[in-house]
Amino acid sequence: MSIRPSPSRRTFLSLGAGAAASTVWIPRRVHGYTTVEVASRLEDGVGMSKWDLDTPALCVDLDRLERNIATMQAAAKRFGIATRPHAKTHKSADIAKMQLAAGAIGICTAKLGEAEALMAQGVERICMTTSNLSPAKIRRAMQLRKKSAGFIQATDTEENARQLSAAAREGGVTADVVIDVAVGTRSGIPPDEGAVALAKLVDTLPNLKLRGLLSYDGGAQHITGFATRKERTLANIEPNVRVRESMKRAGLNTEIFSGGGTGTYNLQHLVPGFSDIQVGSYVFMDMQYLAIGSEDGNAVYNDFASSLTVVGTVLNNRFPGRLTTDAGAKALTLNVPHAGVIGEPDADYNAGSDEFGVITFKSGGPAKTYKIGDRIEMIVPHCDPVVNLYDVMYGIRNDKVEKVMAVTARGRSQ
Amino acid sequence: MSIRPSPSRRTFLSLGAGAAASTVWIPRRVHGYTTVEVASRLEDGVGMSKWDLDTPALCVDLDRLERNIATMQAAAKRFGIATRPHAKTHKSADIAKMQLAAGAIGICTAKLGEAEALMAQGVERICMTTSNLSPAKIRRAMQLRKKSAGFIQATDTEENARQLSAAAREGGVTADVVIDVAVGTRSGIPPDEGAVALAKLVDTLPNLKLRGLLSYDGGAQHITGFATRKERTLANIEPNVRVRESMKRAGLNTEIFSGGGTGTYNLQHLVPGFSDIQVGSYVFMDMQYLAIGSEDGNAVYNDFASSLTVVGTVLNNRFPGRLTTDAGAKALTLNVPHAGVIGEPDADYNAGSDEFGVITFKSGGPAKTYKIGDRIEMIVPHCDPVVNLYDVMYGIRNDKVEKVMAVTARGRSQ
Repeated sequence: MSIRPSPSRRTFLSLGAGAAASTVWIPRRVHGYTTVEVASRLEDGVGMSKWDLDTPALCVDLDRLERNIATMQAAAKRFGIATRPHAKTHKSADIAKMQLAAGAIGICTAKLGEAEALMAQGVERICMTTSNLSPAKIRRAMQLRKKSAGFIQATDTEENARQLSAAAREGGVTADVVIDVAVGTRSGIPPDEGAVALAKLVDTLPNLKLRGLLSYDGGAQHITGFATRKERTLANIEPNVRVRESMKRAGLNTEIFSGGGTGTYNLQHLVPGFSDIQVGSYVFMDMQYLAIGSEDGNAVYNDFASSLTVVGTVLNNRFPGRLTTDAGAKALTLNVPHAGVIGEPDADYNAGSDEFGVITFKSGGPAKTYKIGDRIEMIVPHCDPVVNLYDVMYGIRNDKVEKVMAVTARGRSQ
Repeated sequence: MSIRPSPSRRTFLSLGAGAAASTVWIPRRVHGYTTVEVASRLEDGVGMSKWDLDTPALCVDLDRLERNIATMQAAAKRFGIATRPHAKTHKSADIAKMQLAAGAIGICTAKLGEAEALMAQGVERICMTTSNLSPAKIRRAMQLRKKSAGFIQATDTEENARQLSAAAREGGVTADVVIDVAVGTRSGIPPDEGAVALAKLVDTLPNLKLRGLLSYDGGAQHITGFATRKERTLANIEPNVRVRESMKRAGLNTEIFSGGGTGTYNLQHLVPGFSDIQVGSYVFMDMQYLAIGSEDGNAVYNDFASSLTVVGTVLNNRFPGRLTTDAGAKALTLNVPHAGVIGEPDADYNAGSDEFGVITFKSGGPAKTYKIGDRIEMIVPHCDPVVNLYDVMYGIRNDKVEKVMAVTARGRSQ
């Protein structure tokens, strides 16, 4: 965990390749509208600039968001693979619906609470990628299946599969089930004969319908350099490919063979039988993904545009070589690489203080002079946990606030 | 930022000195009640164990919380100093009211949104320790002053003081104001003649009433070792003491000279004229504070008891030497030292994955065998940002859920 910016950091911040806006307007006087005021102004048809939001404000550039969704969908089509985007990233019913409208075959959630919150807002075809372990959670999952025919539940132990079967019977439903097969050592059943046995069990248990398997390689997503990322992604998943082949030979359903993420979206179609990619961060991008490098050798991973930023305010400029802002760890998390200050390639943004951010400058110093009260805009370090800190994100187009988007499943870590 | 546990870590986890429970009961079968179910059961007078909560669950041991509040209040009385606890830590109206009832002279908030949320729930005598910069925020602060005579607002520039004066006049109030004087280089006006000039200005501006100065030394709170902490705390604040003396000589009001925190609560009374301590974390404690060492030379800072934990569930035990839990960075943050697993002195808890925690074991290995579905309990790494991730914390007594406490100002980073 290095706190020093990677070599590509300066490059993409200075070139604006990863920046959410190529120019930055820093006004002398800003208003500071609250969410309630913004909603009321939008209802009245009164526009406002993103610089006039109260800060810290989580902003998503809608042009870039829409373009990212279209780009991913087009790429998947080219690769002959489907998308099943992961909502753990955005936790937003609005964005999930945009993804489904663009052609996604479903939406993934990591937590049952996320699935419940999103389905309550009309998101269909949800795949729960984590096993639900307690009897209560299993029952809640089966209630989601009852509400929505497209609901799919992962399982990774025989005991859990039996409980699922019992709960499905009790609920009067047939549950669509996928086996969560591990890639690495974090979650899922190890990719060996045990996984095939579990698939066979699911296939025979009453009220369960086997749909296939999940194989998400979390560790591969942020490997820097395309060649290494490709090599490891394909090597890591080999045992899972063998599990799928065994399942197929046993006459089991393998229509779903799902995994991958934004870092490997253009690699998963090389895996035999892979059906769909669980891409998440591509809608927003962040400093972590921008740093992994693209297939064409660019140090900046520029397949998708950085759309998610936090607008903050300069609180203090009176200590040499540093600025204090109102966006600390409660607004930006402690993830590394640190937040990128747009227009300031020499800035290091330290969100190590809970309430305040501290910006220091390397050799070059700041590109401009900051006054107290000036707005400043940051690319987020890691999109998923940052989004989880906010109740709303502001949908921005051409620097104007277009809509208030609820972070539907914010805080749903259960 | 080291990710290796400090030498004291093993000590206090094994001795249970910092642990929230000296024994851990890990049941084979748990229910997994949601917040709604818990509230309904409590209303019906039906008890339940904390182990039966859906996880990850943020829990506060009420005996320890109450004892910590009483201990701090007694210590302050002994030192001849008042307490003005900082609500940025707990963000809870319930706990703020407990602190006021115990004798605190006021409550601090770091953000205007926190002050608004807490005051809406009946918390009085709030001191906003950060300047509000935008005209809208200044007006909102003056609305709080209108609602509550005990409201105090910090300021740290002459321009801001003039705006405050104008807003107070516009709002028809006289605003109680303190000068935020920097200790270190993060926030506030530098501790020199400029600070005295600002105090003089506030004293003369219409509709403002100067009450004194704030001097919070954020950097001193986590210095390991009492002797060093004492030396630096007293050295760091010397310029601020001189500012206060100049203010006094100029006939200005210095009744408030406020700052300090849990790490320096037993040092601030040594500062001439210091009026009150803005202690926050002492109500909960966390791995960061437990590691700083106590005045009597104990490696564990045991002046207060660890009361805040996250109860999680073991999701996976099938990879040698490691366990996967359902509490990742979205449940525990990335702060170091890492979460402490109660009853497992050899465990290292890595919350580096957003959704999952991964526990590995040093030499000794786990103290017991964990099955999938077992509950596990962690002392939080750093209380403030962890609390900010949850909508509620469960008030626990003798391992039973006694009440559901709202995190009133959760997410109020504005």
